[in-house]
Amino acid sequence: GYPFIVWKDIARWFVILQIGVVTALIAFIIDICIEEFSRIKYKQLKKSVDIYVLEDKLYIPYLLWVLSNICIVFFGSVLVSYVEPVAAGSGIPQVKCYLNGVKVPRVVRIKTLVVKAVGVITAVVGGLAGGKEGPMIHSGSVVAAGISQGKSTTFNKDFKIFHYFREDHEKRDFVSAGAAAGVSAAFGAPIGGVLFSLEEGTSFWNQALTWRTFFGTVVSTFTLNFALSAYHGHPGELSYPGLLNLGKMEPFPFQFYELPVFMLFGAVGGILGALWNYINYRLAVFRIRYVSAPWLRVVEACLVAAASATCGFLMMFLLDDCRPLGEDPTKNPLQLFCADGEYNAMAAIWFQTPEESVRSFLHDPIGSYKPWSLLVFIICYFLLSTWTFGLAVSSGLFIPNLLTGAAWGRLLAILIQYMLPSNSINPAKYALVGAAAQLGGVVRMTISLTVIIIETTGQISNALPIIVTLVVAKWTGDFFNEGIYDIHIQLAGVPLLGWEPPPLTHTVYASEVMSHPVFTLRTVESVGHVLELLRLVSYNGFPVVDPPLSDHAEVTTYKRLRGLILRSQLIVLLQNKIYNENANTTWSNLNVDMNMFRKEYPRYPSIDELQIEEWEKSCSIDLRPFMNPSPYTLPHRASLPRLFKLFRALGLRHLPIVNDVNEVVGMVTRKDIARYRVWRHRGHMGMEELLLSSEI
Amino acid sequence: GYPFIVWKDIARWFVILQIGVVTALIAFIIDICIEEFSRIKYKQLKKSVDIYVLEDKLYIPYLLWVLSNICIVFFGSVLVSYVEPVAAGSGIPQVKCYLNGVKVPRVVRIKTLVVKAVGVITAVVGGLAGGKEGPMIHSGSVVAAGISQGKSTTFNKDFKIFHYFREDHEKRDFVSAGAAAGVSAAFGAPIGGVLFSLEEGTSFWNQALTWRTFFGTVVSTFTLNFALSAYHGHPGELSYPGLLNLGKMEPFPFQFYELPVFMLFGAVGGILGALWNYINYRLAVFRIRYVSAPWLRVVEACLVAAASATCGFLMMFLLDDCRPLGEDPTKNPLQLFCADGEYNAMAAIWFQTPEESVRSFLHDPIGSYKPWSLLVFIICYFLLSTWTFGLAVSSGLFIPNLLTGAAWGRLLAILIQYMLPSNSINPAKYALVGAAAQLGGVVRMTISLTVIIIETTGQISNALPIIVTLVVAKWTGDFFNEGIYDIHIQLAGVPLLGWEPPPLTHTVYASEVMSHPVFTLRTVESVGHVLELLRLVSYNGFPVVDPPLSDHAEVTTYKRLRGLILRSQLIVLLQNKIYNENANTTWSNLNVDMNMFRKEYPRYPSIDELQIEEWEKSCSIDLRPFMNPSPYTLPHRASLPRLFKLFRALGLRHLPIVNDVNEVVGMVTRKDIARYRVWRHRGHMGMEELLLSSEI
Repeated sequence: GYPFIVWKDIARWFVILQIGVVTALIAFIIDICIEEFSRIKYKQLKKSVDIYVLEDKLYIPYLLWVLSNICIVFFGSVLVSYVEPVAAGSGIPQVKCYLNGVKVPRVVRIKTLVVKAVGVITAVVGGLAGGKEGPMIHSGSVVAAGISQGKSTTFNKDFKIFHYFREDHEKRDFVSAGAAAGVSAAFGAPIGGVLFSLEEGTSFWNQALTWRTFFGTVVSTFTLNFALSAYHGHPGELSYPGLLNLGKMEPFPFQFYELPVFMLFGAVGGILGALWNYINYRLAVFRIRYVSAPWLRVVEACLVAAASATCGFLMMFLLDDCRPLGEDPTKNPLQLFCADGEYNAMAAIWFQTPEESVRSFLHDPIGSYKPWSLLVFIICYFLLSTWTFGLAVSSGLFIPNLLTGAAWGRLLAILIQYMLPSNSINPAKYALVGAAAQLGGVVRMTISLTVIIIETTGQISNALPIIVTLVVAKWTGDFFNEGIYDIHIQLAGVPLLGWEPPPLTHTVYASEVMSHPVFTLRTVESVGHVLELLRLVSYNGFPVVDPPLSDHAEVTTYKRLRGLILRSQLIVLLQNKIYNENANTTWSNLNVDMNMFRKEYPRYPSIDELQIEEWEKSCSIDLRPFMNPSPYTLPHRASLPRLFKLFRALGLRHLPIVNDVNEVVGMVTRKDIARYRVWRHRGHMGMEELLLSSEI
Repeated sequence: GYPFIVWKDIARWFVILQIGVVTALIAFIIDICIEEFSRIKYKQLKKSVDIYVLEDKLYIPYLLWVLSNICIVFFGSVLVSYVEPVAAGSGIPQVKCYLNGVKVPRVVRIKTLVVKAVGVITAVVGGLAGGKEGPMIHSGSVVAAGISQGKSTTFNKDFKIFHYFREDHEKRDFVSAGAAAGVSAAFGAPIGGVLFSLEEGTSFWNQALTWRTFFGTVVSTFTLNFALSAYHGHPGELSYPGLLNLGKMEPFPFQFYELPVFMLFGAVGGILGALWNYINYRLAVFRIRYVSAPWLRVVEACLVAAASATCGFLMMFLLDDCRPLGEDPTKNPLQLFCADGEYNAMAAIWFQTPEESVRSFLHDPIGSYKPWSLLVFIICYFLLSTWTFGLAVSSGLFIPNLLTGAAWGRLLAILIQYMLPSNSINPAKYALVGAAAQLGGVVRMTISLTVIIIETTGQISNALPIIVTLVVAKWTGDFFNEGIYDIHIQLAGVPLLGWEPPPLTHTVYASEVMSHPVFTLRTVESVGHVLELLRLVSYNGFPVVDPPLSDHAEVTTYKRLRGLILRSQLIVLLQNKIYNENANTTWSNLNVDMNMFRKEYPRYPSIDELQIEEWEKSCSIDLRPFMNPSPYTLPHRASLPRLFKLFRALGLRHLPIVNDVNEVVGMVTRKDIARYRVWRHRGHMGMEELLLSSEI
């Protein structure tokens, strides 16, 4: 009754509270581990460089660097390749698919979470050009799925709580809130988190849901800030600026005539981002073809780890970018070949985590870097980061792209300074705009990225330049290709539905889209037939039809639709032996039945695991009390846009197509719709039919 | 073909650009008019007070004040009451209904825009406790509707452009962008604007649409800032802080232990907001019963104008709140009875626009106001503002509530200071939190309000306290009643659908919800019958059914569904005399037909305006080429939640209900669904069936 609804509502808030806290704590642990391990690693390396530079044996610290990178990355990569391959990469494409309604196997399991967390620590500490933000977002999703379901398949434990949340719809809402909490913990961006989960996942704006999600992101930011402020020795001081990931930006004044400059930055970001995506796409295709064996993937990851160290070492060694020690906030100033009282600027950038390097580029005073070293750094890091994303390690692309962008933003600032010597240029402003442009050009996120950047730099006065840059970056990038996440999703052959139906498809009718013949069940069906059907085909939904009125041969093809039943329901019915024969004893109480269906959620046994005796096959099941008696249907003359809207708006997975007298003539699944895909390229567009993975 | 799709896409961006610019310019004009007229008015009043206070004839400036208020408000109120009543109030409830898919008559017409703009200037200059923000949002919507349609009914002018945007769906998208641009212009909040249009209007998150909306809000903020910066003498300096409505807030440090204080503020805001809503609701009910004649409404508005002046005058006169002239940014310091070198603090608050008063409360140093004067001010303004909202004038409730909230926030700050003398309190912090709490308690907006407040004060560091306060304010307020906009929408009997289907309605079936008998048309129908049907009933959609196969009496009730045709389509068919007899000559070219249907959009002639000769009645129309051949349907055993989801997700207006053999048995309209409404009150909930207006 109504008290239960109220109670469920309160329970939802409570679950969200837990999700926020746990997500923040996991993010805190990842943060601290990366920070501490990196500190130890770079301290040792610096010590070794300081010793051996005098003896002219710099190959020793170099080998030490390469070896330490390889060892750490090897560990993480083995974990990812052999234990849980779905934990590779940033996890954002997987979460996006999950929220879109596509069931990606194992994506929200605790095992994935553990591998992801350990993997991201090894990836960043191992010196790869990767970030921790994507994995944190994925972690948030797993936490949400785990807590809201009150049970874990990995540990085979059922806490017997929240069983009323055990259905796709509720679970998806929680996972979306978890992803938002993850963004919030990764960037300290509660509003950006909500927008991220909306932009990447949700089809619907539901005020209550959004509000709860917002609560979760706020709790997550609060918890993380509280933990970090305690760790940094300012317990409880939540406005402590050291909590901002990219450091607090100062507001920078800007004039109307600077607009074209920001647009130029956006265009550069869009072009570089599109190039990044293109290279990454070719690499991904190459990997699918030639680097699919787990051991090969581990080798590749180690290779990239070695290459990263080599790049860094060569730049430190060859580019003599010496700067006087001073107000610069470099933790490990490395003298190398510089004069006394100076430090090597490139070593300062390489001997810290990428996140700290972004901070350096955003906040260091003008003239901290030579243009040549910046240029070399940009090229190296651009290539390294695009090579890294897609390896068999857990790491994201936010920070590397921000780093590349901040570097070329700084470079352009030096150029502008050079051309307009009268004007004194604020390099922080251009570094930030460049970082935003580069990241925007790669991910093509829109409003959520804007808000995330504003929140993570703690300064809203800079909103307008960032927005202008991002708009232009997205336009420019979209002219060439799609965002990196969409590219990877398409490569994986996932039947993801877009936002709008493909245009000009009013002449594609349901009768062309649907698959037929249809496998139907009669309202009262024999166990043997159900068993046979489930073994024969892998469909998840079956129309239930009237038994033919007569035995005429011609009526067998078309039968009148009575309802729709899911594979999972059939399996539960078989498992619990709800046969017609003992009907009166079992399903008299419908409440018991609900729990029967929920118990196994979300992983029902496969049909082959069921023990069905031979004698049972002659029993029959009455499907009528269990089936969905009023499924959504469309007539066979409905057009593709109508089908699309129904699938998109209601999150359907299968839809029976009927004729004028309500007889089933076909079934349309999500995949049948997702096949029709629009491409846009350099101002042209068209439609293609895709091949989709049969696994998902 | 595809080039047209690309072209349409570019045209959309162009339309949005225009919407942003025009909305900002209108907002600029309103802004400047209010500022300049108010300056003149209060300068004259001050002069008069300064003269007559010496002669002890203070009744003269009082009468002057009352009279000027009444005159100005009278003009605006007459305009609203007699010319365009839909321009009354803030316009937000109307825009919300429009975006929800309910056609509110005349809400997006240019006449409404003019009355609204002039009305809001008179309301604010006339000294009412109203704000200009709501009307600006409404203005943005009208601008969007006007520009995107490329024609105006008011001026009877068709620019013959953008005719491909003349359909409900496209128009609604533009109106939502226009509302967002309005928010953006009103508060300087581009992100908040997008969130507002999502939270109040949109059901769907569509990335492309949101991105375009964002572009529009950014253009709008840019244009307004550019115009204002030129007006204030800083042309092109877009980061000039004087552009922020509520002034730039300083970041205030806060500690973990301050959380309970913010929660307390939230709770106070929630309770006061609920009380405000309750009083306003009772007043609205009273007005519907007893103050419905236009002249009475004008009288009431004048009465409130006089009451406002009287309140202000009494407070200046009776509360001797004298403060030394100093760093305070008071434009018209009024000495009144104060000593030389002092000014009357209450006069400073009353002799400026409400927006400037909010700024004073947010930024004045501690100790600028006596607690007693604050308390009296809070009570007066609370009652005045709740009395004002709902009058026959154009004014919103944002600023008055921010003002009340900032005042009690300041009062509580003084109390806290008093109790903890050791602690030095920042009154700005508590004034801002109080303002947020009060407004949140009234409107119950969530994430969009948070972002708007952050953007309009230009300081993101204060996000967490504001968020905590708003969460608690909404929870507390929702415990007692609904948000003010929802209350007014419900009072108007608008069939607005909520976010989620009412719970526990799985046992309400379509057969109970639907209306029947159904008025159906045959696929080929006689003109006389169509005419008769359209005159007889006011439905907007008619199922098209098979002609009965035989003449048996029993088959007449149930006929097989073939499609759905709209009233507007039938009218266009009749108007253009597309009869079966001359079929071959007319509808051979389908392109011509599309324009035929678009030409009249959105206001089709009523059936009585059509000239149909007697002989035509025997002609017949073939509906098949025009009807929607595959309407969404549901079987009669579908439950209310299924119906609800279909209506909500697809924005349907009518849905044929069919039986097992696809024969029409009933029709469900939006109103049939909206009747079932959930109430929540003090932790309880239930469902009620509403009476809905038959006008909309």
